[in-house]
Order: sequence, then C-alpha cells, then structure tokens
Amino acid sequence: MSFNTFGHLFRVTTWGESHGPALGATVDGCPPGIALSEADIQPWLDKRKPGQNKYTTQRREADAVEILSGVYEGRTTGTPIQLMIRNTDQRSKDYGEIARTFRPGHADITYYQKYGLRDPRGGGRSSARETAARVAAAGVARQVLATLVPDLSITGYMVQMGPRGIDRARMDLSAIGENPFWCPDPETAASWAEDLDALRKTGNSVGATIEVIAQGLPAGIGAPLYAKLDSELAAAMMTINAVKGVEIGAGFGAAALTGVENADEIRIGEDGRLVYGSNHAGGVLGGISTGQDVVVRFAVKPTSSILQPRQSVTIDGEATDVVTKGRHDPCVGIRAVPVGEAMMACVLLDQILLHRAQVGEGPRGRIG
Amino acid sequence: MSFNTFGHLFRVTTWGESHGPALGATVDGCPPGIALSEADIQPWLDKRKPGQNKYTTQRREADAVEILSGVYEGRTTGTPIQLMIRNTDQRSKDYGEIARTFRPGHADITYYQKYGLRDPRGGGRSSARETAARVAAAGVARQVLATLVPDLSITGYMVQMGPRGIDRARMDLSAIGENPFWCPDPETAASWAEDLDALRKTGNSVGATIEVIAQGLPAGIGAPLYAKLDSELAAAMMTINAVKGVEIGAGFGAAALTGVENADEIRIGEDGRLVYGSNHAGGVLGGISTGQDVVVRFAVKPTSSILQPRQSVTIDGEATDVVTKGRHDPCVGIRAVPVGEAMMACVLLDQILLHRAQVGEGPRGRIG
Amino acid sequence: MSFNTFGHLFRVTTWGESHGPALGATVDGCPPGIALSEADIQPWLDKRKPGQNKYTTQRREADAVEILSGVYEGRTTGTPIQLMIRNTDQRSKDYGEIARTFRPGHADITYYQKYGLRDPRGGGRSSARETAARVAAAGVARQVLATLVPDLSITGYMVQMGPRGIDRARMDLSAIGENPFWCPDPETAASWAEDLDALRKTGNSVGATIEVIAQGLPAGIGAPLYAKLDSELAAAMMTINAVKGVEIGAGFGAAALTGVENADEIRIGEDGRLVYGSNHAGGVLGGISTGQDVVVRFAVKPTSSILQPRQSVTIDGEATDVVTKGRHDPCVGIRAVPVGEAMMACVLLDQILLHRAQVGEGPRGRIG
Amino acid sequence: MSFNTFGHLFRVTTWGESHGPALGATVDGCPPGIALSEADIQPWLDKRKPGQNKYTTQRREADAVEILSGVYEGRTTGTPIQLMIRNTDQRSKDYGEIARTFRPGHADITYYQKYGLRDPRGGGRSSARETAARVAAAGVARQVLATLVPDLSITGYMVQMGPRGIDRARMDLSAIGENPFWCPDPETAASWAEDLDALRKTGNSVGATIEVIAQGLPAGIGAPLYAKLDSELAAAMMTINAVKGVEIGAGFGAAALTGVENADEIRIGEDGRLVYGSNHAGGVLGGISTGQDVVVRFAVKPTSSILQPRQSVTIDGEATDVVTKGRHDPCVGIRAVPVGEAMMACVLLDQILLHRAQVGEGPRGRIG
Repeated sequence: MSFNTFGHLFRVTTWGESHGPALGATVDGCPPGIALSEADIQPWLDKRKPGQNKYTTQRREADAVEILSGVYEGRTTGTPIQLMIRNTDQRSKDYGEIARTFRPGHADITYYQKYGLRDPRGGGRSSARETAARVAAAGVARQVLATLVPDLSITGYMVQMGPRGIDRARMDLSAIGENPFWCPDPETAASWAEDLDALRKTGNSVGATIEVIAQGLPAGIGAPLYAKLDSELAAAMMTINAVKGVEIGAGFGAAALTGVENADEIRIGEDGRLVYGSNHAGGVLGGISTGQDVVVRFAVKPTSSILQPRQSVTIDGEATDVVTKGRHDPCVGIRAVPVGEAMMACVLLDQILLHRAQVGEGPRGRIG
Repeated sequence: MSFNTFGHLFRVTTWGESHGPALGATVDGCPPGIALSEADIQPWLDKRKPGQNKYTTQRREADAVEILSGVYEGRTTGTPIQLMIRNTDQRSKDYGEIARTFRPGHADITYYQKYGLRDPRGGGRSSARETAARVAAAGVARQVLATLVPDLSITGYMVQMGPRGIDRARMDLSAIGENPFWCPDPETAASWAEDLDALRKTGNSVGATIEVIAQGLPAGIGAPLYAKLDSELAAAMMTINAVKGVEIGAGFGAAALTGVENADEIRIGEDGRLVYGSNHAGGVLGGISTGQDVVVRFAVKPTSSILQPRQSVTIDGEATDVVTKGRHDPCVGIRAVPVGEAMMACVLLDQILLHRAQVGEGPRGRIG
Repeated sequence: MSFNTFGHLFRVTTWGESHGPALGATVDGCPPGIALSEADIQPWLDKRKPGQNKYTTQRREADAVEILSGVYEGRTTGTPIQLMIRNTDQRSKDYGEIARTFRPGHADITYYQKYGLRDPRGGGRSSARETAARVAAAGVARQVLATLVPDLSITGYMVQMGPRGIDRARMDLSAIGENPFWCPDPETAASWAEDLDALRKTGNSVGATIEVIAQGLPAGIGAPLYAKLDSELAAAMMTINAVKGVEIGAGFGAAALTGVENADEIRIGEDGRLVYGSNHAGGVLGGISTGQDVVVRFAVKPTSSILQPRQSVTIDGEATDVVTKGRHDPCVGIRAVPVGEAMMACVLLDQILLHRAQVGEGPRGRIG
Repeated sequence: MSFNTFGHLFRVTTWGESHGPALGATVDGCPPGIALSEADIQPWLDKRKPGQNKYTTQRREADAVEILSGVYEGRTTGTPIQLMIRNTDQRSKDYGEIARTFRPGHADITYYQKYGLRDPRGGGRSSARETAARVAAAGVARQVLATLVPDLSITGYMVQMGPRGIDRARMDLSAIGENPFWCPDPETAASWAEDLDALRKTGNSVGATIEVIAQGLPAGIGAPLYAKLDSELAAAMMTINAVKGVEIGAGFGAAALTGVENADEIRIGEDGRLVYGSNHAGGVLGGISTGQDVVVRFAVKPTSSILQPRQSVTIDGEATDVVTKGRHDPCVGIRAVPVGEAMMACVLLDQILLHRAQVGEGPRGRIG
C-alpha cells in the first residue's frame, strides 16, 4: 500500500476531493479479457449513492461512472482502467469561515497540522465521497471474481446501530435489501428506524457495526506473514472513513473464550469435503483461508457532523463553538455497508492473484 | 507490505522457522548514525522471551541477538541490518505423526492446503517464535525513535484475560512490570493468577485483550488514505499470531455512542497548546495523528495448543482426536504484549519517515 | 515500480490509450504547499507536442492538461493530483484490418500474445502518446524541485541521429532551442535536416541518441543497492518507447578505458568545494550522486512505422506485407528529448524524497 | 524495488558487508515444492568466486552458502529462504588511514557524503562481494525456472575487454567455459590474456562488455509500462557494481539504423511457429518478450582499485595521492559474467510470476 493506492497486484489508486470537478480510481493489474462496461459498475455505485432515503445525506449526486481507459470492445485489455465520476452537486458557497475552523471529530485539524493547508470544501480529500471511487474499482474486481471464482459471494449488512444489535436467531440475509439499513433482521430494522427518527430531530448521530462475509472462497488464499488475509482485510476496512475497529470471526469475543471453546473442530463430511464444527476463526487460520465463510466486522463511529454545538478552536487558536450545518448522514454506517463489501472484493481478488503468482491455479494440498 | 516484509521506508523482512537453525530480521531503510549494539536490542527480546514465569511456555531459548551487518563502530551505516537469533532449544523428536495431523486452530491445515507441504516442526513459520524477529527489529526502531522523537514512549499492557477486565479506575502504568501479566491493575492481576492456575490444571487456555499506547507522538503523522496511521496499526497488530481484532480509541464501543458523546472537543490550554476534552479518536483523525495518545487494543484468541482432545482429521482424511502435548502458553496473550509494543514502534517510525519524506521535518500547520 | 506506476515516494501512475477519450497521470506523494496550476505544466507538454515542425508527426493534439484534484487555491495539498489530457485528434477509421495484422517492430504482436486481445487504435496503450502523461507529471516534479533544489537544472538534447553525431567541441547548450532537433551543435543540426528530408522522401526513418544532464544536484542523492540513482535512471529511460540502451557518464565507452584513464581525480578548489578532474562517472558513484553533473544517454530506435513494405503475419498466421500509413515521426528520437528530461525530473525528485526520509534534509557528511 | 530489495514477487533482499561476519540474501515469494539444497546453489557461487585464476582477486573465500530457512526435507515451503555466506578471509588490518581517504572511482566518498559515516573495511556495503548474495539468490531462481520453464537457458559471456571485441563470426558458446574470461571466441580470449598480463604489470586495470542471453523464454512475458522486461533488465544490470551502460538487442547501434534496416520481419515457419528474420529487438517489443532470444549487454568500467597513484582528498579536505594496494581484479568485468546471469534469472522468474498472476499460466493469444 502507498498513500493513495491499495492492493499488491490488483492495485487501486483513488483520487479526487468532495467538491472538485471529479474523483475516480485508477485500477492497474486487472486481468485481461474480462467483460466490463459502465453498466457492470453502476449498480454498485447506485447502492452506495447518497440521497436514497431519509436516513442518508440529501446531497444529490448522479455518481455516473465513466470508463476512460483499459477497455476495448467491452473487454479489459490488461492495461490501467481509469474510472471517473464527476461531481455535480457540490454547492457553491463561502468556505471562508469553515476554512478557519476545525470541526471536532473531523480530519480538518490533522490535515492542516500535517500539510499546512487543506481543501475545506466538503471535507476535501477526507470526505466519505472518496468511497465512491473504491466502490467503482470494486465493480471491476467483482467482474474478475465472477470469472475466476464463480461461486464466491460477498454480502454486507449492519448488525448494530447505537446500543441495539440484531438478534442472530432471526437473521435472514434475504431481508437485507428490504430495509434502509441493510439489516438482516427486520424487527431490529424497525427499531432502528424509530431510534434514528428520534436522533435526527435532535441533530445528533449514532455509530454502527457492519459485518461482511465472503462465501465460497477456496482454502489456501492469503499469505504469511505481513500479507495475511486477515491483516489485509483489517487494513482495508480501517481505511474506510470513520471506522474505529475491525475483527475477524470471534474477534474481541475470543478474548473471553477458553481454548476448548474456541477450537473449530474438523471432520470430513459424507461428500469427502472438510466440515468445521464452528467458525470462531472467521475463515482464516495463520492468515490463509480455510474454505469456511470469511467473516469480518467493523465499527463505524457516529457521524461527526452534528447540529448540536461542540467546542473547538479556530486556526488562530480562538475558542469557538461548531455546529455543522448541511446535508449529513445521521448514521454514516449505513452507507459504509457497500463500501465494506467493496473492500472485501478488492482484497480477495488481490490475494487470489498473489496466490496464483506464487503457487499457480488453485490450492496445492489435498486432504483425504 | 509484501509476504514477509512490513513497512514502507523502515522495512522489516523476517525469516526463519521455529525449529530451524536460526531466525531473524533484515531491517532496511534505517537512518544512519544511530547508536546501536546488541545490548540495545537484547532487553526487548528478554522481555518477550519464553520461560520467564510459570504462565509462559517452558521452552528455554537464550534469544541472543547477533548483528551481522549494517553497523560500524557502534553506529548504523544506513545499509541493511541483519539481526539473527539462533534456535537452541528445538528438541529433536519424531514429527512423523504431527506432520500428518492437523491441529485445530493452528495454521497447519491452511499452510498445507496452500503450499502442498509445510514444516511441521513446532509450527514452522507460523510459530509465535517468529515474533522474536519483530521484537529485535523494533529494538532498532526504538533507537531511531529515541533520536528523532525523544519524548515518545510506547507502553503495552493487558486489559482483559478471559471474561475478566481491569478496573480502569485502578489503572497504574507503573504496576505493569510488577506482575507476570503486564497488568496495570494489581488487583485484577491477582485474580488472573488464580484463574490461570485453575485453567492450566485442566489443560485449557484463555484469550486476552492487549492495549498499547504511544505518548508524545506529534500531530501530523500518518497519511491519507491507504496508509492511514490507524490502518497501518490495524494491519500490523493483525499480523501477530492469534490476534482476531484491533480497535483504535473508542473502537467497537463507538458503535454504541452518539455523535454528541463521541466528539472530542478542542480547546487551547493556558500554555497555548491544544487540549482535547476526551480521546474517543484514540489519537488519530483521518488517518493522521492528533498529538493525543495513540491508543490501540487487540484481541488475542486462546492458545490453540491444549491438552484436551479436539476432533480433527489427518492428511489422508481420517478422523482423529488431537491433544497438543508440549510446552505451551496457557495465555499466549501475555507474550503478545511486548510484540504489540514492537509493532507500534515500527509503524510509528515508518510513518515518521514517510512524513519527513513528503513534508519535511515536523508538522507543517500551526494553530494559534 | 508496478505495471503502470513509477517512483517510490513521488509516484506517478499513467493511464489511457492513444485513441481513447483521454489519458493522464495520477501523481501521489507530492509535497504540500507547492504552487501549481495548469500554466506550470502546459509549456512542457507544448514542447513534446506533435505537429510542431515537419520532422514530427502531423497529428494535431492540443495536449491541454486539466488538473482534476490535489490542488487548492493554487497550491498542492499533498493528496493525489490527477492530470487529464483529452484526445481530440484520434481520427475515426476502420481498424478491422489493422487489428488482424502485426506491424514489425511494434508491440502489437506481444500485447496480443500476452493478453489475447489489444486495442489496435493507434497502438493503444503502447503508443508514444502515453509519454504526454509523463511529461505532465514531470511538470509537477519540476515545481517541487524548483522549491527544494532551486539550483537544479535539467537539459536534454540530441547527440546523434543515424550515423552522424555532434561535434562536442562545438557544443553549445544555448543552441538547443533554435533548431527542430534539440541539437546543441548547429552545424550538425543542419546536416540532420538534410538527412531527414532525404529519408522522409523514401518513407524510411532513423534512430537517435539523446543525452540528458542534471546540473546542480547535491552530493548524496541515491541509495544502495537496488535503488541506485543510475539504476533508477536506466529503468526510467528504458521505459520510454523505442529506447534500446541507456548509459551513464562514460557508459559503454568505459569498457575500452583503463583504470588510470577512467579515474575521476578529486581536489579541493579554492572555494573549499570539491573539484573533479573529469566526469567519467557521470555524476554517480556507488549509486549515489557526487555533486558533478548527472549525465545520462539513451538510444532510440528508428520509428517502426514506415512506408516501405515489411514482411509480417496476420492473426491467422498468414504471410502479409505491412506498410504503415498515417502520420508518423521519421525520427521519433526528436520527441523523446522532452520525455527524457521528464523522466530525469521525476527520478531525481523521488530520490531526493527518499534521501530526506532516511537521512533528513541535505547530505550528512562534510569534507574539509 | 526498495533500497536493498529487488523483484516484485520473487523478492530478494541482500545484506552484509565485505568484511563483516557474513552476508546473504533473504528470498521471499519463492514458489513452494521446489527441490532445493545448498548443493543446487553452490556451483553458481563457485563460478563467481574470486581467486580461481590469476586474472581475479586473490582473496580466498570459500563462499559456502548455508540455507537457514524456507526449506523442509529438500523442498521449498513458500516461506522466506535465508541464504547466508560467512566471510572467512577478511584480513584484519588497520583501516584508520583508509577510513579518512577517498579512493577515486569508489563509492567511499558518496557513502560518506550521504550518510556521514561508512564502513571502510574493503568497501563495506559497496564492495562487489555483495554480488555473492545475488548469485546465491539466483541459484534459487534457477531451480524454480527449471520447473516452470524447463527449456529456458541463460548464458553470459564477455564480448569486449578494453578496446578489443570478439569476432562474432567465430562465436562459439561451447568455448565459454574453456578460458578464464568466459569468452565465446578462443582467439580473442588469447589476445585478452596477453593484454591483461601486460596491464597487471603496470598496476592498471581495464573495462569490459558482457552479454547475457536467455533462450527459450516464451512470448508474452513482461508488462507495460513501468515494469517492461527491458526496463527491469536494465535496472537489474545497472545495480551491479561498476556497470555504466545497458542495452537490449541492437542497443546503441539502433541509433545508427534506418527503420527499414531495424525492422525484424516476421514469418510463419513450416512447423507453424513464428520465425523472425532478425533480432534487433533483442527479444523484447513494447516491454514484452517476443519468444526470440532475450539479448542484454552491459558495460563494466575498469576496476577503480589500481596501483598507480591518483589524486584525491582526505576527509579533512587535504590533497593526497591514493594507491589502492591489496588484492584486486585487473578486469572486474570477468567476475561480472555470472552476476549478469544471476540478475537475468531473477528478473525473468519475477516477470513470469507477474504474468501468471495477471494472465494465468502461459501466454494468452495464439497466432495461426
């Protein structure tokens, strides 16, 4: 990884600010001959797009992706794919005051401290708007994955909002698309709607936890020691705006377990394939996939842009109270769901290519 | 990061297996002119070393580091520093049966599936013994940090073992060295001792949570977007054996907070320096340090090597019950404390060098 | 370096094809606070632009650069700078036949063999048009260099065309801009004009050798062993289309010298600065700059697109004769001059940032 | 590439100084399951070893390689392979004066200027002794290549020494091993022996040009644009001590050719395979292999350590005359032959793995 690039072999470099003319992603290392058009990418962008319901920011962006390079006659050529998204709803206004005040919880202050200047318009480079570029890049990754690992599926959903988590006994992945929270538990989704309505009226916001699972990944993907699959996933999720924690499988819960409880016992099933008695490992042992579901969770802090005044300082060191007006998500975690899926797609493809480089097609060791 | 290398500019490549002749770390990119000898590194290795009390494995390794290159007349030359640690207590025994059986919770099975073969002696490359190489490399990083950021201190400690966490009201960093658990709360340490004595008798093990804090890091260190300080720390901690989760500041707790609660308010203190009202951010905003303490926590799963039988399979697909005899840590989290500190040191130095490359010496923007 | 990225810290990723909608460069790692606008970059693009005289291709491209990100109020922000150049003169025509035939000396055949498909329009990704993106990126590098090393100058010129080389006794850098060949020897330039007029009439082309020198680079820039300044320069020049050889200082001529002849003797001048008796080293010893002029030469093969028929094959394996009609440079080496300067600028800046990271500002050891 | 690492996927990090206890290479990314023992590597080290005839330095090093990791029961495991070579003939002597004087043509002065200190013992890190580590690493690469591309052969030889080049009409690769110069033209070898005997008596040295060819590399290996096969080869060769120029195929000679002369015409042979009429391209078009021989040449400057006095300065800026006593190669180019072969092997394997990652096994497009 570099400053603005992620991936070793499927390399994504994102660029652009919230209120500049455009943003995008340069995707390098994509395998050739993969079917790809804007229509393959756009649905993922639409899923992430703001303004789709009352719980997300009312900024209206078409988020229309343009492929500027790397595709010829509907197929990837193996050369860099430039994905550009024009910004169309960056409202013109006076940023003079905002440019001199630091909003608590935002990167305004650290960008300024680091660089000595910052683009204050809508958060500039630190805006969650950058995640559109990742989602676009992941649209490419998904096309490749559909060719290389057709059985793979990646699913993200929200498992907690504020203090209220889902009931895993009621969990139903088919319910995810049927509520504004990507929630697999309709009852909890209904409660969240009430909670969020109340919060919004007070100009407050709330945090959330997202889970992303990958089903159908073969065993053997990942690599020791500093490119471990779980380390790469942790890094990737932690690059998403507002994420404060990442865990795999049992995660922090593993701290409270004994070794007897935590062991995922192994048996051979009737079809000769491995059957695990549990999945505390979250599908990863020693940084390499087991063939079980890869299970990642990440915590998203409450949106820092709130209507209640918070103490802060100006660039001159004067005390001030900041109220962040504008169009904000009361729970930015909602829109982090498709972003988490995007990062999972990119990391898995990258690791699959790394595996293919070193070991060749598919895993090497067979059991039974 | 590459397979076995971490860091962008302060680059550490570790090598070696648990039961080979030696293991080590190649450290590239170290600034020149830094005082360095084996005596600067050895104390950190001694802190990590097994066999120091009854709660860690009784394997007896001197863990004596040798500097083979990169130092002349007691100063680093700017060229690669090779740190070698000979293995001296790898007991000779018959690995025939172990080589054909997969221990639940271990990387045995995934290494085999990936590569088609594995070094079964003591876990081979996936052994926690590899962490000695990191600790040695971090010994170099600490010497550089002492020169570049003299006020920086890095402190790791255990905050939870099994279901029992410390009482933060009793927290006292000076107590850390006075109990076998690196615990900052002596009362909790005493309880853990009882818990662990009981567990060991049953041949079981237990998980833990470690916290590592860096105090004195200036504002402005870190980088958007895919080299964020928190992302790099998450990746680094997640590469440590048995780690299943990483969080920064409020971490997963942030999911339950509102924006009003989570905001770290800012004021200018009497000395003209910034004062934050809280540190939910864990010292990082937008991937860049705020100047507050950098606070990282990670969860360590219970040791997978236990004396109680667990179901598994052989390489031929036959069902078997595995009991892992030998010298094991009942709570491998204890020895993860110095390893977590080591990773913090390496990541911070690497980021400080990255900052110096792009921006020059020190942060750029001043407030007040 | 990666597939389409060069540089370690000042990282340039280029994208785009000859006849796509646009091409460009994503520049990451640029220091913040540097004055930058399109007007700073455009003159360099204009220098490389085709159609400026009768010796370069008559394709008419405005080559107008747009900065899409990374600059705010005329200053770099430290975040990625996207430089886009729209293609405006890609003539629409039938590529059906071209797509099925391989032009000798072109990358058509190898791209096809590697990827199984290629963009045949104007050479696609392998077109020299890609070098516009490098020149744009180098425009950014030059702005940074002007701040960090104000005394540095980079000058490229042609020293040989076909069998005829310049007379070094007549060499005058101020003459470079006064002939269409960037030639520092006006008499030789006049001869080249005659040679090239004759060649063009026969539909033939010719090779050339370019020299690029950097004056004013301090001693101490570069790094052992696999990021040597000369190795990085060689790699960079060799990535330019049609380049077949690179040399530093005495270069291949050094093979014929004795050690006595080749030694660059050192003395201290009256001003206390080092004075070298010669510069066979080309300003680089052990991969690190000496403070003398950095001197690089590279050979450019004759343009492969010629009007005389050459034997080749079709995608179906049928024998055919290829004549490459269209708008081509009879000596593509001419337009390689500003590209060579661009690569020198990017490599030097990258190495200066690497040096700053590891060692701090400026060289460390003083003599006398 | 990083400071002391080369390769993208087959990554070699070398370490160690001329007169330290040991030097070596850490090889990461090696495919698993490859047969490997010290006996597979040692012959290549023996070929490079000094003291084998009167034309190379009389330093006597066993250059015995030890594999410290990454191999189990004679097979590579896919984890890092540590190759260590102990230094046994570093004569103890007083380096006080050498440490204060800069030898012309050596990296002494630039290392000092860069880092502020240097290891003066035998050139420290800048010694050609480092090339032993590359040759050892290439021994691993060759074992992998023998499995992945059994028909590939890599052959290096000297084509020029001082002013005298071989006669290509007499070229016979089978003669290479039968003279001390790796010369494919026995008559020229005899002349070189006379030349070098004369030079040695005067305490002088001489330069050389080496050619390395790879036969049997399939088409399609390499990658646009900044990982071009020729760019990677140029970078690799230029990292070898004393190399001042690199060229591919016609190389600098291409500058003097016309397009008609330079075109490598293509036909389909009777066996349905491509037949090229010439190989001015040196086996690479657009950075990707054509399937013809890959032909690289590099120029080695005369050994800088000579017995005739040369003007220089001390660390205090005083004028002095330097005579480099000791055991030196009168033509260091001789020992560069196996090193050039080693770099070719490492680069080709690395590119083959990159190709496998992106495109899968083998080239993709078929002709005819």
